Amino acid sequence: MFEMKERSGLGRIGELRTNHGVVETPALMPVVNPSNLVITPKDLARQFGIQILITNAYIIWKSELRQRFLDDGLHRALDFEGPIMTDSGAFQQHVYGRVDVSNEDIVRYQVALGADLGTVLDVFSEPDDKRRLCEEAVEETLRRSRDAVEWGEGMGLVGTVQGGLHMDLREYCARGLAELPMRVHAIGGVVPLMEAYRFTDLIDVIVASKKGLRPDRPVHLFGAGHPVTFGLAVLLGCDLFDSAAYVKYAQDGRMITRWGTTKVDELAYVSCNCPACHSASPKELQEDVGRLAQHNLYVSLQELEELKQAIHEGSLWEHVERRCRAHPSLLDALKGLRDHVGFLERYESLVGGTLFYTGPESVWRPVAYRFRQRMLKRYSPPRAEGVLILPEGARPYTRTYSNTLRDLFQKADAHAVVRSVFGPVPVELDSVYPIAQSVIPSDLDLEAVEASEVLLREFLRRGYFSVGILWEGEATIDELASKAPGPTAVDMDMQKCQAIANYQFGPGAADALLEGKVEFVKSKKTKKIRNVFVDGEHVLSLRARDGLFTMKLAGGKRLHGALRPPKLRVVVNEESAPLNREGKNVFAKFVVDCDDDIRPLDEVLVVDGDDELVAIGRALMNREEMRAFERGMAVRVREGSRLP
Amino acid sequence: MFEMKERSGLGRIGELRTNHGVVETPALMPVVNPSNLVITPKDLARQFGIQILITNAYIIWKSELRQRFLDDGLHRALDFEGPIMTDSGAFQQHVYGRVDVSNEDIVRYQVALGADLGTVLDVFSEPDDKRRLCEEAVEETLRRSRDAVEWGEGMGLVGTVQGGLHMDLREYCARGLAELPMRVHAIGGVVPLMEAYRFTDLIDVIVASKKGLRPDRPVHLFGAGHPVTFGLAVLLGCDLFDSAAYVKYAQDGRMITRWGTTKVDELAYVSCNCPACHSASPKELQEDVGRLAQHNLYVSLQELEELKQAIHEGSLWEHVERRCRAHPSLLDALKGLRDHVGFLERYESLVGGTLFYTGPESVWRPVAYRFRQRMLKRYSPPRAEGVLILPEGARPYTRTYSNTLRDLFQKADAHAVVRSVFGPVPVELDSVYPIAQSVIPSDLDLEAVEASEVLLREFLRRGYFSVGILWEGEATIDELASKAPGPTAVDMDMQKCQAIANYQFGPGAADALLEGKVEFVKSKKTKKIRNVFVDGEHVLSLRARDGLFTMKLAGGKRLHGALRPPKLRVVVNEESAPLNREGKNVFAKFVVDCDDDIRPLDEVLVVDGDDELVAIGRALMNREEMRAFERGMAVRVREGSRLP
Repeated sequence: MFEMKERSGLGRIGELRTNHGVVETPALMPVVNPSNLVITPKDLARQFGIQILITNAYIIWKSELRQRFLDDGLHRALDFEGPIMTDSGAFQQHVYGRVDVSNEDIVRYQVALGADLGTVLDVFSEPDDKRRLCEEAVEETLRRSRDAVEWGEGMGLVGTVQGGLHMDLREYCARGLAELPMRVHAIGGVVPLMEAYRFTDLIDVIVASKKGLRPDRPVHLFGAGHPVTFGLAVLLGCDLFDSAAYVKYAQDGRMITRWGTTKVDELAYVSCNCPACHSASPKELQEDVGRLAQHNLYVSLQELEELKQAIHEGSLWEHVERRCRAHPSLLDALKGLRDHVGFLERYESLVGGTLFYTGPESVWRPVAYRFRQRMLKRYSPPRAEGVLILPEGARPYTRTYSNTLRDLFQKADAHAVVRSVFGPVPVELDSVYPIAQSVIPSDLDLEAVEASEVLLREFLRRGYFSVGILWEGEATIDELASKAPGPTAVDMDMQKCQAIANYQFGPGAADALLEGKVEFVKSKKTKKIRNVFVDGEHVLSLRARDGLFTMKLAGGKRLHGALRPPKLRVVVNEESAPLNREGKNVFAKFVVDCDDDIRPLDEVLVVDGDDELVAIGRALMNREEMRAFERGMAVRVREGSRLP
Repeated sequence: MFEMKERSGLGRIGELRTNHGVVETPALMPVVNPSNLVITPKDLARQFGIQILITNAYIIWKSELRQRFLDDGLHRALDFEGPIMTDSGAFQQHVYGRVDVSNEDIVRYQVALGADLGTVLDVFSEPDDKRRLCEEAVEETLRRSRDAVEWGEGMGLVGTVQGGLHMDLREYCARGLAELPMRVHAIGGVVPLMEAYRFTDLIDVIVASKKGLRPDRPVHLFGAGHPVTFGLAVLLGCDLFDSAAYVKYAQDGRMITRWGTTKVDELAYVSCNCPACHSASPKELQEDVGRLAQHNLYVSLQELEELKQAIHEGSLWEHVERRCRAHPSLLDALKGLRDHVGFLERYESLVGGTLFYTGPESVWRPVAYRFRQRMLKRYSPPRAEGVLILPEGARPYTRTYSNTLRDLFQKADAHAVVRSVFGPVPVELDSVYPIAQSVIPSDLDLEAVEASEVLLREFLRRGYFSVGILWEGEATIDELASKAPGPTAVDMDMQKCQAIANYQFGPGAADALLEGKVEFVKSKKTKKIRNVFVDGEHVLSLRARDGLFTMKLAGGKRLHGALRPPKLRVVVNEESAPLNREGKNVFAKFVVDCDDDIRPLDEVLVVDGDDELVAIGRALMNREEMRAFERGMAVRVREGSRLP
């Protein structure tokens, strides 16, 4: 069983339950070779805090240790109390052309060893294998996986996605495996990609596999042991890694860094502060393979801790974008994520941490893509004669600037949009995440400027406006007002609430929420809208943090009446509905279905099978996740319909 | 005395000699407050390897410790055996409007304390101070610095550059200080810049100051204690930093990371492996200010060790470019370096490590700028009817590709240039550093593509060619040959040597070096030119590593005869010449002058005052450095003219 504890898009901190305890993911499983223990399993646990190991059942089976391991069991033989995953020999089968064992033999052997997670003997494809060959490998892998279900009973079965570089085959294979009762899925056939720095291919393979797999099972990226790849892989939803690299690199005289490797004989300064390095001279590291292996493991684990902290604090994208400067091929892969932004956006939370621009790639993050999509699809500007296009500014969202905008906007009968690297931002949406929560350089990359320009043109082409005025910061407000058709009084607060409501809940939401006598309660200090009352009922609150609404039950009722199913709905079963009515949270296992447009942290309507409103709250998952997960919260309920 | 041990551009690893021992730079001087020792000086030395401390003489003078410190001396009072620098109260004077001490008092007090380095009471300017105010501050600072020379005798005097954001004043102040007998120079008035993330202003200030200062004195960046700024500062030639930040941030509950700071109460995972953090939980760090301060110091020192290793291995630019992704304001500063590329290029070595592209800024590194400059100024293409423009390719310099180029080139009477992010590369120069030694992504930033296009147009505008053929990879070689005026036999080896010789040594060099019967000795394995003999004499060797020539004495004689002084010359005094004739290296203190176009690692002619050739070798410094340094090697001599 796997549960998601914290998330950032597809990236997640999870808990994987096994017969030998719980593993926090993302986790690195050190590869242990029983015939050559560079660091003993006991030390891995004690000194490095390793929770889970991986070892190769086929190599044990082939060796003189075969019987002893059977007799003692894997855990006693390795002297390790935590969970152990075993591999099946698929890689050896590929490298040496054959293995001396059948799928049945090796699966049964893994069960007999007492492995917590054991792997089907899948069929490995090379990246450049032709389609026909890959198809055969995928079909054979699926056949063997189906067979293994019976033989592997009692053990957590690991089924590996193959398919070479044929993305439809990857997805097909993943989908087939997802239907089987397995505990973990692995992505295989990727070592040759990593060895050749083909990181763009790697991310394509991960995404295709993730599309076919179920979100409630952890994904293991087979053979990814260098921390330079962890960031991209975690961002794309990989949960488990295995590393023989810490030993292999050490034996090859190479020190792993989070930017690559350094040959120890080129080391003049030891900058690492890990327990293995801290007091070491370059010479001491050069002469001590064991110490170097320890360093390599420490630095690999450190990267995962940094990734977990980044998920926790909402800075995963920044972290990964920085790490991808380690090598131009990683930078290519980072740029390649743009091709998958539609898929990534489905898993990306509505709001997150401050967005720090790190380069032209930042403009294509899922949250920026979503802003543009929702703005173009859901937002309709107020009627006005003209559009006032305000200059691209590095930090146009300061308070001073906004006041200027407001003045401009009120004096001219023109609708104002601000150029930004995220595309044109209607002035009513200028406090919405991530617009006001982003830090952009003054000196923009040409690519970001071009993106901004293209998006602006697309916005203008929609033909909302009959007049366009470009303000490049030269004209005074009065001059602008005189150029515009003429001043009228506009209710900025109302327009702002309308725009945000439609942006956040979809077209029609503003009309439903704001029909009647609207009153705003404002912050005394900031003068910003805090609460919205309609006909005396508290309908919405506006969050200062991210510029979006929190829905109140009264607001939920209005939306429920106006928007047709499945809009904003999370449908729960009969078991759950009465509890949710009383304000209890919605757990994923009770969710029947939900609106496909719901994203984590969206405000939602919880309804029963008859579309009766039972509660309102905040989603923690998207549709795929709510339907798949057996554990974990799907909606944090704010108010049940049965008021206390 | 200061000596440069290793370098990367203005960035350097140096040794600063003091009365209490040698300090390796770049170095961080922890700020020690004698009234509140969070980490004792003894522990700073023992546990952190701190070589040099800084403390504030004015604060001691003001406190009850004044007399005790005088009686005991600074080193005994602080219980620290290494060198100690003292500050003068200039910052306090600025913050509180006045200090209760005169310049004479505080300089003499520092001498009396036994400070190894003591600071003049300079006059601080705020970044936004008007010119007149800054002028006065600069003049007063210079006056006080001149006065202090006498009072500060026996102590290493530190003179601080002021001038606010008036760059000419900064340079003027620096120039004035450089004329005085001082040991170290500081750059002051920068704390407000760093506090406000005004990093573009910061780099402008550092560059303006460095332009006026002498390269043989270490430069201290006053108040730069956060490691996020170390990279840029070291890249621009700062050698000393002081940090109160490690304590201040800890007291404020903030953990320093190399990407910024994290509030300890937002810490869910401790990813740091330093001795203070390694076995700590977030809670333990949250509750222990001392432990947090230790972490903050460890991580700050770690950044300097990484910077030293980066200088050592030639990856300083990559390191800094990556670090500047920590914040958009740092990215602005990184882009701002382009404005200073002419100055930076003077200090940049001819060759270095593999150039890894990290973003559009990489295209404007000094080595790329130099390539373009030398190519445009020194290279003249062979006579041909047309120019064949080969497509921008991510990695056009592979062997396969070069062979294709060669074929094309030989079949068509067209001169071939390849588009690259560094500008057009004539095919003869395609193995020269950094062209063949760079790793560029496949998917180029628009900015890099545009740069490439602009530079190509500039090249073509020079009008060398009457026909331009653009090959976009569609046409076959035969088609291309048929479009070109007609095949002729050209001597690629000869053209290549001519082009490289002129590129490396200047126009006219090829004619001088290659006049006569030319023979090439080639590598049996790679078939590449290794040695060039002319009329039976070994004139040049071509280095496989960087595609440039190593000069032999016979070649040096030819260049000496053909190129007029000061071209390629390093002029040594009478004391040095006889030694260099015998093959001994040239030390900077004996250099009279040298060619302004010489860059570190350029091949040079060592001559005496009468322009007699005494040796040939490789420069390790540029002109400013050779003229300034009293210690260190200026030219590594390969052959003296008096052959053994």
